[in-house]
Amino acid sequence: MSRLEEKTIKSQTIYEGNIIRLQLDQVTLPDGRTSQREIVKHPGAVAVVAITDEKKLVLVRQFRKPLEKTILEIPAGKLEPGEDPRVCAFRELKEETGYRAEEMTPLVSFYTSPGFADEIIHLYVASGLHRGEARPDQDEFVELVELTLPEAWQRIADGEICDAKTVAAVYHWQLKEMQG
Amino acid sequence: MSRLEEKTIKSQTIYEGNIIRLQLDQVTLPDGRTSQREIVKHPGAVAVVAITDEKKLVLVRQFRKPLEKTILEIPAGKLEPGEDPRVCAFRELKEETGYRAEEMTPLVSFYTSPGFADEIIHLYVASGLHRGEARPDQDEFVELVELTLPEAWQRIADGEICDAKTVAAVYHWQLKEMQG
Repeated sequence: MSRLEEKTIKSQTIYEGNIIRLQLDQVTLPDGRTSQREIVKHPGAVAVVAITDEKKLVLVRQFRKPLEKTILEIPAGKLEPGEDPRVCAFRELKEETGYRAEEMTPLVSFYTSPGFADEIIHLYVASGLHRGEARPDQDEFVELVELTLPEAWQRIADGEICDAKTVAAVYHWQLKEMQG
Repeated sequence: MSRLEEKTIKSQTIYEGNIIRLQLDQVTLPDGRTSQREIVKHPGAVAVVAITDEKKLVLVRQFRKPLEKTILEIPAGKLEPGEDPRVCAFRELKEETGYRAEEMTPLVSFYTSPGFADEIIHLYVASGLHRGEARPDQDEFVELVELTLPEAWQRIADGEICDAKTVAAVYHWQLKEMQG
């Protein structure tokens, strides 16, 4: 056990939902005292950076109940049990935006909230885009939006682009443009 | 009500923890059907991009129970009720790393997981750093780590830097370096 590690004494499921599971862990801290950790278990997700031939980023406008507002995000979705993230990336891009990609290249994976959740997002870059028809999930209502790089920065400033994966996507795109 | 919006029929608190609250909302979807949303309420947080005079990024190594591993993150912490995020940024940087900053400039704010949580992180850039003594919270065990930009990219590749705010911080730093 490393000098920073916390050891589980007891783990209890508080709530089992459709998407998340809430778990309460009693732990021993590195100094021997005990504490409690509230943990949200999540299946993980993928998100896709898709830039069209017209140099526009593909986004979806979507109402997000936790925020009580409609925001602009890159296409994304939860992993099905056992699903390959790359396969999920192709699927979600197609379902939400209609775009079919020829290739999906892994860019970076990150945990969104390591303090209380295990959600990981695998970010992919799509290439060889072909436009098609979107087919969102039954309870998913999304609108396709395409933005140039300056427009994307403006939406960050305005707050309509306001989530971690989409901000990361715009940063990545800007870096790629500067690297030529 | 916008064409994408979901209307709350009923909202129920499932669990009230020390850090998060789990809420279950019954909603009306834009097409009139009903659905259920699992929502994690969080007080919000700040995170600090602090680069020393020696051009090193200030990080903390910390065990994260939800991930069951020790990772490298930029200094961060939850907002106290009613706390000004800028004040929180000064405080968390000092507590976790010992560094006192002369200035805190807002960089960007983002939601970490808009699909199931309302957590927002306000990212600040610290300047005018003065080294001092760290004083972490009672149940917080952290180690100070300082990395150059190439070292930070390497830790992203290795997976030791693996959370949204820290990846965003490295992207920002790289952009700033390229912009000169």
